Parts: sequence; C-alpha cells; structure tokens
Amino acid sequence: MNRKIRMGMVGGGRGAFIGGVHRMAAALDGEIELVCGAFSSDPERSKASGEDLYLPANRVYPNYEAMIVGEKGLPENERMDFVAIVTPNHMHYGPARMALENGFHVVCDKPLAFNMQEALELAGLVKETGLLFALTHNYTGYPMVKQAKTMIANGELGKIRKVVVEYPQGWLSTRIEESEQKQASWRTDPKKSGIAGAMGDIGTHAENLAEYVTGLQIKTLCADLSTFVEGRALDDDGNVLLRFDNGAKGVLHASQICAGEENNLNLRVWGEKGGIEWRQMEPNTLIVKWLDKPAQILRPGVGALSPQATAHTRLPGGHPEGYLEAFANIYRNVAVCLRARLNGEAVDPLFQDFPSVKDGVRGMKFIEKVVESSGSEQKWIAF
Amino acid sequence: MNRKIRMGMVGGGRGAFIGGVHRMAAALDGEIELVCGAFSSDPERSKASGEDLYLPANRVYPNYEAMIVGEKGLPENERMDFVAIVTPNHMHYGPARMALENGFHVVCDKPLAFNMQEALELAGLVKETGLLFALTHNYTGYPMVKQAKTMIANGELGKIRKVVVEYPQGWLSTRIEESEQKQASWRTDPKKSGIAGAMGDIGTHAENLAEYVTGLQIKTLCADLSTFVEGRALDDDGNVLLRFDNGAKGVLHASQICAGEENNLNLRVWGEKGGIEWRQMEPNTLIVKWLDKPAQILRPGVGALSPQATAHTRLPGGHPEGYLEAFANIYRNVAVCLRARLNGEAVDPLFQDFPSVKDGVRGMKFIEKVVESSGSEQKWIAF
Amino acid sequence: MNRKIRMGMVGGGRGAFIGGVHRMAAALDGEIELVCGAFSSDPERSKASGEDLYLPANRVYPNYEAMIVGEKGLPENERMDFVAIVTPNHMHYGPARMALENGFHVVCDKPLAFNMQEALELAGLVKETGLLFALTHNYTGYPMVKQAKTMIANGELGKIRKVVVEYPQGWLSTRIEESEQKQASWRTDPKKSGIAGAMGDIGTHAENLAEYVTGLQIKTLCADLSTFVEGRALDDDGNVLLRFDNGAKGVLHASQICAGEENNLNLRVWGEKGGIEWRQMEPNTLIVKWLDKPAQILRPGVGALSPQATAHTRLPGGHPEGYLEAFANIYRNVAVCLRARLNGEAVDPLFQDFPSVKDGVRGMKFIEKVVESSGSEQKWIAF
Amino acid sequence: MNRKIRMGMVGGGRGAFIGGVHRMAAALDGEIELVCGAFSSDPERSKASGEDLYLPANRVYPNYEAMIVGEKGLPENERMDFVAIVTPNHMHYGPARMALENGFHVVCDKPLAFNMQEALELAGLVKETGLLFALTHNYTGYPMVKQAKTMIANGELGKIRKVVVEYPQGWLSTRIEESEQKQASWRTDPKKSGIAGAMGDIGTHAENLAEYVTGLQIKTLCADLSTFVEGRALDDDGNVLLRFDNGAKGVLHASQICAGEENNLNLRVWGEKGGIEWRQMEPNTLIVKWLDKPAQILRPGVGALSPQATAHTRLPGGHPEGYLEAFANIYRNVAVCLRARLNGEAVDPLFQDFPSVKDGVRGMKFIEKVVESSGSEQKWIAF
Repeated sequence: MNRKIRMGMVGGGRGAFIGGVHRMAAALDGEIELVCGAFSSDPERSKASGEDLYLPANRVYPNYEAMIVGEKGLPENERMDFVAIVTPNHMHYGPARMALENGFHVVCDKPLAFNMQEALELAGLVKETGLLFALTHNYTGYPMVKQAKTMIANGELGKIRKVVVEYPQGWLSTRIEESEQKQASWRTDPKKSGIAGAMGDIGTHAENLAEYVTGLQIKTLCADLSTFVEGRALDDDGNVLLRFDNGAKGVLHASQICAGEENNLNLRVWGEKGGIEWRQMEPNTLIVKWLDKPAQILRPGVGALSPQATAHTRLPGGHPEGYLEAFANIYRNVAVCLRARLNGEAVDPLFQDFPSVKDGVRGMKFIEKVVESSGSEQKWIAF
Repeated sequence: MNRKIRMGMVGGGRGAFIGGVHRMAAALDGEIELVCGAFSSDPERSKASGEDLYLPANRVYPNYEAMIVGEKGLPENERMDFVAIVTPNHMHYGPARMALENGFHVVCDKPLAFNMQEALELAGLVKETGLLFALTHNYTGYPMVKQAKTMIANGELGKIRKVVVEYPQGWLSTRIEESEQKQASWRTDPKKSGIAGAMGDIGTHAENLAEYVTGLQIKTLCADLSTFVEGRALDDDGNVLLRFDNGAKGVLHASQICAGEENNLNLRVWGEKGGIEWRQMEPNTLIVKWLDKPAQILRPGVGALSPQATAHTRLPGGHPEGYLEAFANIYRNVAVCLRARLNGEAVDPLFQDFPSVKDGVRGMKFIEKVVESSGSEQKWIAF
Repeated sequence: MNRKIRMGMVGGGRGAFIGGVHRMAAALDGEIELVCGAFSSDPERSKASGEDLYLPANRVYPNYEAMIVGEKGLPENERMDFVAIVTPNHMHYGPARMALENGFHVVCDKPLAFNMQEALELAGLVKETGLLFALTHNYTGYPMVKQAKTMIANGELGKIRKVVVEYPQGWLSTRIEESEQKQASWRTDPKKSGIAGAMGDIGTHAENLAEYVTGLQIKTLCADLSTFVEGRALDDDGNVLLRFDNGAKGVLHASQICAGEENNLNLRVWGEKGGIEWRQMEPNTLIVKWLDKPAQILRPGVGALSPQATAHTRLPGGHPEGYLEAFANIYRNVAVCLRARLNGEAVDPLFQDFPSVKDGVRGMKFIEKVVESSGSEQKWIAF
Repeated sequence: MNRKIRMGMVGGGRGAFIGGVHRMAAALDGEIELVCGAFSSDPERSKASGEDLYLPANRVYPNYEAMIVGEKGLPENERMDFVAIVTPNHMHYGPARMALENGFHVVCDKPLAFNMQEALELAGLVKETGLLFALTHNYTGYPMVKQAKTMIANGELGKIRKVVVEYPQGWLSTRIEESEQKQASWRTDPKKSGIAGAMGDIGTHAENLAEYVTGLQIKTLCADLSTFVEGRALDDDGNVLLRFDNGAKGVLHASQICAGEENNLNLRVWGEKGGIEWRQMEPNTLIVKWLDKPAQILRPGVGALSPQATAHTRLPGGHPEGYLEAFANIYRNVAVCLRARLNGEAVDPLFQDFPSVKDGVRGMKFIEKVVESSGSEQKWIAF
C-alpha cells in the first residue's frame, strides 16, 4: 500500500481551536491526508470550513452521521481510514460510537467522553471491534517525556517516592465565558463539559502525564476543588493529594485562575537515586538530578538518549520542536500502526506508543473521583 | 552610644553548622561584635571554639548558665547586649528563658522550641519583659521576598486566590544519620527535634514564608506526612493542602528525600490581577506575572522597587547577594532596633521587620497541626 | 482559485536533512502540497524517495532539468507552481536559474549560491522575470524575532548602539566529515560549499538575523576566521567586529567547534533606552531590558504583541512553537503571496515578509568580505 | 598568634561604594578587624566616617600619610598589619608605595594604578620588599570560577580553542556623571580614571577572568573602542578580538552603555572535549557542556567538586553565596597567608590563591594595548 492514510474530521470548523491543531499535527509528517469532514453541526459552516481546507464539496458533510454513511458508501480505495473527533466533550461519544460501529478507526480529543458511562461503552466497543482508538493526551508525545518515562522504567531513579505534577493556567481568571470566547464558554458549561471544569480540561492531562511517566497508578486521593470566579458553575482550580500504588506520595494541582500563567504543565518525580524535572513550556529540556552527582541537562539529539526519545524527534539538537510536533507524534504513531495493519505487517513497539481508550477511562475516573472527594468530609477516596 | 552591639552566643562550637552562619550574618554589616560565648555543652569544646574565634579566655564560658551569670556580673559598658541561641531545638528554651529573665535580648534559631508549651512560655516572657526577641526565619530577610510582600500588601496582585509553597531538599534521601553526620543525627532524633522531622526543620520555613509574603493566615489544613527512609523515627516528607483566612487555597510540600534537590525553597502566589514567583536558590529575581501584560523580572537595584526591598539591599544591581546577606538583614535590623532602644530613639518601621516570638508560636502550631492531621481520618484540621 | 499551492522539490532525497524540513514546513499549514520532485542526482534514489513520499511515479523525475521540462509540459491546472531547492550550495544556481527562466517561482535554501557571480545573476533574473524568490533564512520566521524587529523599527529601544550576534555549534568539533556524515562532508568541501565553511553555513544566518532585526546594515568589518580541526579545508570558527551604517558597533561570532553547543543562535541589541535578547533554542521568549525599569518577558500570545508577531503565531500562549513553525512561516507567507498573485489580489504587507534574493546577495557579500578580511592585515574592510 | 589580622583602610568614607564592600568582605569570616583608617582626603569626612564605623578617634587619620606614620609608631601588638586601598585609580599608587616602603602589606582595588609606569614601580617594590600584595579582582573569588579553572588546568575540556568573555553594564547609558553620581564622575574623568573608561573599569575584570580561568595569556588583540554618550571623554564600550598564546581565539566585549544590563560579566570557554559557561549574576551555577554527553550543572556543595571550589565555599548546596562572599574569599586568603607568615608557618596552596601585583601589571598592559589598538589602523597589536 503506497498511499497516505486518509483522515475524516468531526468538528474543527471555522472559529474552533483544537481542530486546526489536529490538522497541522496530522499533516506534519506527510503520512496522513485530510480527505473529508463534518466540521460543524451547522451545515453551512461545515461547507465553508471545507472550502477553507481545499476539500472537494462532495467530501464535506453536513453532520457526522452523513459523513460516516457517505464514506462507508465510497470504494475502499477512496474512503477515509479513520475519524478524528475534535468536538467539545459532550460530542465525543456519538461520532466515536458510530465510527467504531461502522468499522472506522478513531482519534479522539480528550477527555474521552461526557461521563463515565459513555467512556465505558466506548471502551467496550473498542475491545469488541478491535479497531484502533487513540486519545490525544498530546503532552505524552514529547520526546523528553518519553525519555523520562524510559529512565524511570529502567530503574535509573530507583524506586519512586514523590511525584509533583502542576498545571497552572490563567486564562479563566475573569469571567470571559460571558464574552464571546468560544473556548471558555463550552468549557465552563456543565452541559457541554461534564461534571468538572479545570479538572476535566487540564487536570486529566496532569493525571495522565504523571501516570504515563512514572508507570504508577494513583490509588487514593484527597481533593479540594474551588470555583474562584463568581457565577461560574464548574471548578476553575483544584489541589489534590495523591497516593500511588507503590507507596509513593504526591501532589497534583491544576488551575485556570492563576493569573499570568500561560500553559505551565510541569512534572517532577523523585526516586531513591535521583529525580527528573520537565516543563512543557520549554519541552526540549529534561533536568535529571542525582543524589550525589551534578544534575544533567538532557536534550533531544545530544548524547545517547533512549530509543523512545529518539524515535519521536525529527530534528538535530538545538532545533526546538514544540507542541505541534508532540501532537504530531501521536498522529504519526497512529499512521504507522494503521499502515502496518492495512499491510498486515508487525509494528515496532516504539510506534505503538499513543494514549488509548484505557487512558481515557482512567481520566474519566479521575474526574469522577476528584469531584467526589472535593465534596466529601472523608479524607481519602479510593481511585 | 558610639559602639558596636555586643553579642554572646550559645551553641555553634566546632563542628556545628548554623552557629557559623549566625556569626557571619552578625559580623557582615559591622554593627555587631561577638564578645562572649558558651559554644558547647562540652566545656573543653567550648573553650577551643572560643580560641578559634579569637575571644579572650575569660569570655568563653563552659555553659550558658555560666555565661548569663558571668555577663550579668560585668560592668554595663562591657557586658553583652543580647544572646544568640544556635543550639538544636530541644536546647532553645533553657537559654532563651534564662536570658530573658536576666534582662538580655534574644536572637534564637527556629523552630522556637521543642514543643508548644515551651513556645507559649517564651512568648509570655517576651511580653512580660518587653525585651527584643528575634527568630531567624532567615528567608524572609531577602529583599525580593520583601518586595513581594509589599506588592501584595499594596494590592498590586488583587485579592489572593492561590498559594503554592515548596521546600524540597534531598540530603536525607539515605539514612545518613547512621553515619557521623551531626546535622542529620539530631534532626532525625525525636528527643532533640520534637514531634516532627522535615516539617519542623523546613516545613516551618515554608509556612512562615507563605504567611509573611501574603499577609494571610492558614485557617485549616489537611496533611499527609511520610517517612520514606526505613528506620527513621520522624517524617522526612510531607504534602499539605491549605485553606487561608481570606478564602485562598494552597499547597505546601516539603521534603528531605527529594534526591538531587539542594535547598529549593520557592513560593508562588496568584491573585486576581497577577502572580509572583520567587526561588530561594536564585533569590535576586522576582518574576511578576500579569493577567494581560508581559511578565516582569524584578531585581534588586533595577527600577523603582519598594522601600522595603531597597532598605535590605547592600549592593548595586547585578551584584548578587545571597543567603548570608538575607540572614544578616535580620541581625542588622535587630542591631538597629537595639541601638535605638539603648539610645532612647525611635526606629524607622522599615527596620522593625524581623520574625518575632509570635512567628515562633505560629510555627510550633503548624508542626502540631500537620502531625495531628497526618494521623487523622478527618479531612480538615483547624489551624 | 480554491486549491493548494503546488510545490516541486529539487534535492531532499533519502539521507538528506534539510529536504525533510522543507517538506514539513510546507505541509504544516495546509496551504501547499508537494506534487513532484527530483530528489537526487541519482535517478534511482530520486525514484525511491518519491515513493517514500507517496508521489505518483510520473511526477518523480531523474533530475531537475527533466522536472522543469516535464512540469512545464503539463496543463496549467496540474503543474507545479514553484520549485523548492534544497541541495548543497553548489547546486542552487542551476535549478534556480532554470526554474526562473521557465516561469516557476522559487524557494531556495541559503546561502543563495556558490559564489557572488551566481548570486548576482540570480538576482538579475528575479528582477527581470518578476517571479517570487524566497530564501530560507528561516530564523527570521520566529514570531519573537518579528516582535523584536518591530519594536526596534518603532523606536522603542531608541537609537541602536550595540549588536551582539552569536551562532555557536559544536558538531564539527572533530573531523566527522571523514566518516559517512553526509551533512558534514559537503559543508567542509570547498567544491560544494564555496569559499567559506562555518561562515557560509551559519555565519550568514547570524548576519541576516542581525540586519533583519535591527534594520541596520553592516558597513565595515574586521574578521578573524580559523580552522581548528586539522586537515579541514574551510573555516570552522570565526570572530568578527562589526560597524553598522548608523554608527552602532557590534560583534558576530559563529563556530562549529564549540564542543557541546547545539544550535545556539542568539541575538542581543541595545539602544539608548533599552535592549532585547533572543535565543533560538528557547525561541518563544524575548527578554526586553529597560534603562530604568524592570525587564519584561515577552511571549507569543501574552499581552499586546505587535501585529507582525501575532500574524506568525498559530497557538495560544504557552503552547511552544519551534523551528519547523518558524520555517513554515516562510512557506506560509510565500503561499499567501503566490495565491494573491494567482488570484490577482493584493497582499497584506504582514505576509510579504520573507527573505528575498536581495538578502541572498547580501549574505554572499558577507561571505566574501569576512574571508577577505580574515586574510588581510588591513583592520577594516568595507562591506 | 591568637588574634585577628588588623586592617587599616585608605578611602571608603561616607558616600563611597567600594569601601563598604571591602569592609564587609574583610569582616565576613571573622579573621580580620578594621583598626584604623584614612577614609577621605577631607579630614572632617574621614573623622565622621571613622565614627560611623565605631573606630576610636585616635585611629582615624586625616590622610594616608598620617595613618602610615601613625600606625608605624604604635607598638607591634597594636598596629595594623595591612592597608586596604579603596580609592579611585589615580590614588592607588601613593598609598600603596608608602605602605610597602614602610613594611605594611597591601590589598588594593583594581586596576592597579593610574598608568603603566606606576604599575611597574609597584611591582618592583613588591618584589623588593617581599610583602604581600593582593589586587581585588574579586570575580576570581567565586567557587565556580575556581572549579572552571581547575577543570581546564586538569585538561578535562581538552586543548582550549575559543574564549568569549563579556561584561555588559548599562548604568552609563546616559550622562549621569553630570549629575552628582560620584561613582560615574570619577570613572569618566581621565584625570582620575586614566586613559580608559569602561575598558579600565570592567574590561580589566573580563581580561583577568579569562586569563585566570583558562591559564592562557592574550598574545595579540584587535580593539574597537567607542564613546557613545556625547561629551564623555573616555570609552564607554569596547569590542576586542583576542588571540591566545596556545592558538585559541576569542572575543572580549565590555560596555557601560548596554541599557538595561546590570553587571552581566560572563565567560564561556570551549576546548576540544567540552565547554564551560559561567555567569556572574547567577554565580553558583557552572554549566559544563560535553561533546557527546548531556551537559552538567555544577553547583557548590553538590557532588565531588574540586578542592579549589570547596575551599572557597562556606555553605551547603542551595544556600546561595554571592558577590560579597567571593570578595571575602580574597580577604580570607590574604588573612590565611598573612597569619601563616606572622606565625612562620607554611600555607596550603589552596589559600595562596588571590590576584597579585602581576595580575595588576597585566591589567594595565591590557588597558594600554586596547587603547593603542583602537586608535590604530594596524589589525593586530601584540599584547
């Protein structure tokens, strides 16, 4: 099979943010082409968006149902291979379910679904159909995140004792959802976002990053969620004590009211022999601290990094890769796995590395548990 | 009165760490001279230490009782003005009490005492005698800490919403108290340190820094203390959720098992309009982030800082001052206040700024409450 | 015209580095599609490379001559719009000339040509044909570089006094050109690289960046080039004193033997009122220092940046964009200008911003003059 | 001999800057006491300054001649051991000469003298008398500077190839010497400062630092000095190409018109195997970069540093030491050497490490040569 992998998109029309990110990420490595879309629930907006993207009119659909039906009706050598779902949370389940039921692989934005029931149904469908399902917890796509994960898995830091993961943002410091800010408005609306605000939007990224890098699972937690901006219906800040399954302790805090913060996701992990420190805003630097030796600055392309880091780096040292490249690593890995499946070939495990529906279920559980804990007088809630 | 202020020292003999720090801090500004000492509970060691410091033999005492009695017997124009107490925690109360009862002012290392009862007695004595009592929560002596405090007090960040204070160290990652490490050995010994380990040693610094800078008080807390190093009797790590009296939320974590960390005390505070970030290891930089404006890098000597920051800066911009200079700011302020008192003069409020016995009581309460919370199934413990 | 702009590529086959960069940069924004290529001077390698890229066999050519002829013979609604030339220096002139002579627009890697004569001929042809010609001095594509340029142009720093531009790399610290390192081997070969090594490869980037940001021109210079690695034919290091046309002074140094350096291009400019500092390896931060005010940290998406910076930013604050995104800004601007031309529309000046053949001539002159100066006993050489 | 070393001071009265620095540096380690002074050429100001410092009136002299005569007349067990000279450049020679001629050791601020002739005379006198003479090139007192020097001397970086030393300041960006700024006024006055402005004041620090750390000597140079501020008589900026005696090349630039810069002395050195980077404004960090390994962050108190670094560190890792501590290292070493000499004991070579009159002569030569080069059309001037 010598062709690009074909992507259809649900959501991401004019005025959307994350849809464009998915398209750039998918395009970057030249392995995927966008062939069709249902870019908006408003058919006119969907059509105009398709024109912006230079798609032929007959591949721009008025809604996702039409797209899935229409594409299924095309000859195999034309129709899309997978669907990218880039809608708000409450609109993940419908297209994901229908895509899976009709034999299309899925890439879905996070969190997985609107609530736990939807999440579990999707997980069941993925298992049943055997189709690929990738969830874009994109921060795990960074090479230095993979380097950290590999070092910890290899025992280089010794047994892990402490984990601190932070995700401060400041953009919801005022009630901008009252203005026309589309991103703010659905994220603060319980009908679209679900039972959590900041915890669902970015807390899940923090939870996913911590578990991905450490290979540990949160066992119990104690959360204190807040809504600082008056009139807002969902949490815009949260602090959580963590206990992991190996006995490690930790802290997770995420916020959208830390005025002046951009997108400051960061992770620190300490083991018996040393620690790592990674900050998303300068993602090409991984600081490794050692018990009795000078700290090291690990960087893509410098010295002997892990195969996992190297396989997710495109450029020589000192040529910074960023958010889109990390995001693109998920799409590239999906493309590699999909191509191998279509060709009936095996896949190098290095490229089987992308967040799955299981990560999605775990994220939904995190949302459920921090909300439960925050409303409880009980100190520890089992995860 | 045209002479230096005269200091006597209890503790700080050969092999000690913090005693030397106090002596350098006291000497730096040329306002204080060391005139006598009881440097060790071992009279021989005390004598030898006095010789190291070029003190006349008759001003080197075998113990603090002898010193206080001896100095009191000297003519007023010779005897020490104040006592610096630089012993382990369980040895603060005795000399502090006796000094106060004999009319000597006191500078005491932190935490204030071995337990709350001692702390309250000392606070009572200070009130009763009207003598000066300074507690060396030295990190509040940094000019950029004072700048942050002043900006917050002036409302420049708006109402405070979130506080994150961290104090990771790594030096107790292994059981070095089993070797001859004197600093480690008393700090991990409940008979010398009190009911807390890391929380007493450095957690109190974090608590003090957060309350000093924000002007807020912790109202309730929820703590999870751990002992990671096997065989150790006291906590070497702790994570604490905080709720402040104005409704702000926060996190405090302190640890001595974060392998590879040096002395990484740091504070971030966010209000409605912006936030500040200060890191002790690069103490001359205060990052101020704003809701809708570029962040600023505030530095001593650059632009118009607050009078509070300027009064605690010795050098022009770009000439880094460090730990000893911050520590010396406490001694300098004590000297200024003491001189004014001896001269019957008023003191500029800028120099009345040093931690007091009240801060000490609050620190002891913090220790008591985090230990209580950590052992409790109740989520929130009132401070 | 509702279609993507069509690109043909010369060079960039299997084993090449910069060709892949150009393809990713061109693909990122969804405005350009690769439709054909002559990827290698070895026809078999060209064919295989075309297959890697999922191109139809009939659009993969054995050499650039065949490509230009072949594409010209295609119907207008199929053939490529422009040629991207990504070969070593000595192979720029041939395809560039032929492309221009046959009515194809050109994007060419830097430096412009093998020598000044070639450069001037190309400049003449561009003028004559009126075709678009973009040179990929990609570092000028970063949003914070554009922010700095705009601030200086607006007089915010006052009259410029001093410029320091550095480009240290370390990858040629040993004679890796003797191994199979393809990138090293042509860059150190005078038959392929021209009269300069490091100065041509990266010194020209530094020169271009300094002149682009300041709006000034180097008037005279004094250079000291070195070859540190024994047996190498071209310079691998150079230090240059600069005098600019407005009276500003400066320093440029570039090196490929600074062991341990990655790709550390950086620029500092000081004027009467303040200065800027930008480092390519953390490209989303622009430090602005002021005479009597705290320094500021300017970042994409934070506060009110210039329209020039904003027009070249894709993501919200804190979502790092890197080397490929800056490179893609050149391709995006070329696409915008080309589309406007094809549609007979005007172009917003914000998007007319990419390095041109004039920058290329200036770069060639820089190479010529630093080599001349380095061999001369005369202190100042006119640029 | 069990007493402190006794210091007399020339200069440093009310309103002076560097005198206070010397006093704090001398006091810090408790090895030196200030016993007398001639603090100003104005006897009244000298007297008042002595009172500020709590000196007895009979040890405060109206001028340095009186001080040297007066102290010489005191019993040996009372009189000063050495003189600290902290006057402007044109006032170094007189007191230094008279001190040496009368048997007093000397600590002198830099540059050594007003001109080369004075410098050579002082060097002759030091040789002749055998007295100690320390020059306060204080930046060499930092522990991480000593670490860098030791690593290079041990060959850890391989043969040195490139040196970049920078010293940008911004405080003379405007003509503040016209106001009452005392520091600015003598530094810009050729009658007090000598033939150079910025090059004498800070360029010599940069030259000294580069030669100290590398162990190399500048062999030839090519300088371009400027006076940017209208009406100023001396250079306020300079850029210099350097060639070292081992074949290494380099750049030195220093400026006092880099608006917004504080005191940004920094040094980078690259050898065949790696490079070091040190910045005075964050002096406790030494970045070591390696050819094929991750960079390291060396910090005082972390891991196994050189004995040279450790011997000049007072505090555990993460307790920042700064400018005064580095300055104090010079005084401490002088005290150790002086005490050993007075006691007839040998000195550990670790403590014989302070800048000498030879460094002073070299600094004067640097001033002479950069001024000569800047005025010459000849490209290279032998150092």
